[in-house]
Amino acid sequence: MTNLLILVSHSQTITEGLKELLETMVPDDNNAFSVIAAGGTDDGEIGTSVSKITEAIFANTDKEIFIFTDMGSAVLSAETALDFVEDDLKAHVHLVEGPLVEGAYVGAVQSTINRTPDQILEAIKEQS
Amino acid sequence: MTNLLILVSHSQTITEGLKELLETMVPDDNNAFSVIAAGGTDDGEIGTSVSKITEAIFANTDKEIFIFTDMGSAVLSAETALDFVEDDLKAHVHLVEGPLVEGAYVGAVQSTINRTPDQILEAIKEQS
Repeated sequence: MTNLLILVSHSQTITEGLKELLETMVPDDNNAFSVIAAGGTDDGEIGTSVSKITEAIFANTDKEIFIFTDMGSAVLSAETALDFVEDDLKAHVHLVEGPLVEGAYVGAVQSTINRTPDQILEAIKEQS
Repeated sequence: MTNLLILVSHSQTITEGLKELLETMVPDDNNAFSVIAAGGTDDGEIGTSVSKITEAIFANTDKEIFIFTDMGSAVLSAETALDFVEDDLKAHVHLVEGPLVEGAYVGAVQSTINRTPDQILEAIKEQS
């Protein structure tokens, strides 16, 4: 099962830059991970969007999903999105504790070396 | 003395998004802080640039300067930039330990409530 990293920041621009950074800096010969930039409001303004997160989840139910957030209400939006997800799917969706940029970088690197979800989450926690 | 936050990431886009996020989300009636996006290489590609950091420092020698970085070689670039700074100026330049987005947010907020540099650095460390 490949991993999907969903990036949630109050800035759409930050998540677009971070997606480019991960795809450029982390060699991924086996297509072990993909990235969705889900920052900003539905209009691309500063803020967060529950629907961007739910759409990313429901379009990728065949993947192990990791959601990275920056601050307060981004975490709340991710938690609200998870309320829409049924339990059997929710087992494959992980709300990551850790910093957005640095955490997502570790998550991408660990994805390429065949770590389990628990090992990936542990590696992110260790470096933050 | 006002504070300058210099943002260093491997992605110019991330630092531009973060600058917008800070200027939008942190009310700053007293112009307590300003922000310079110094991410990416000199050409705006993925990577870091010592000269972007030194230029930001030398254009703001009247300010208390905080440098925020994302990962490995961004820290090295910031340290290299500091090698060009004379000791009396260096006392006002702080290389921040902590995550880029979350750390810079705390740094901006704390700047607006008249914290000393040591208190600002302590607050960033506490939340990360």
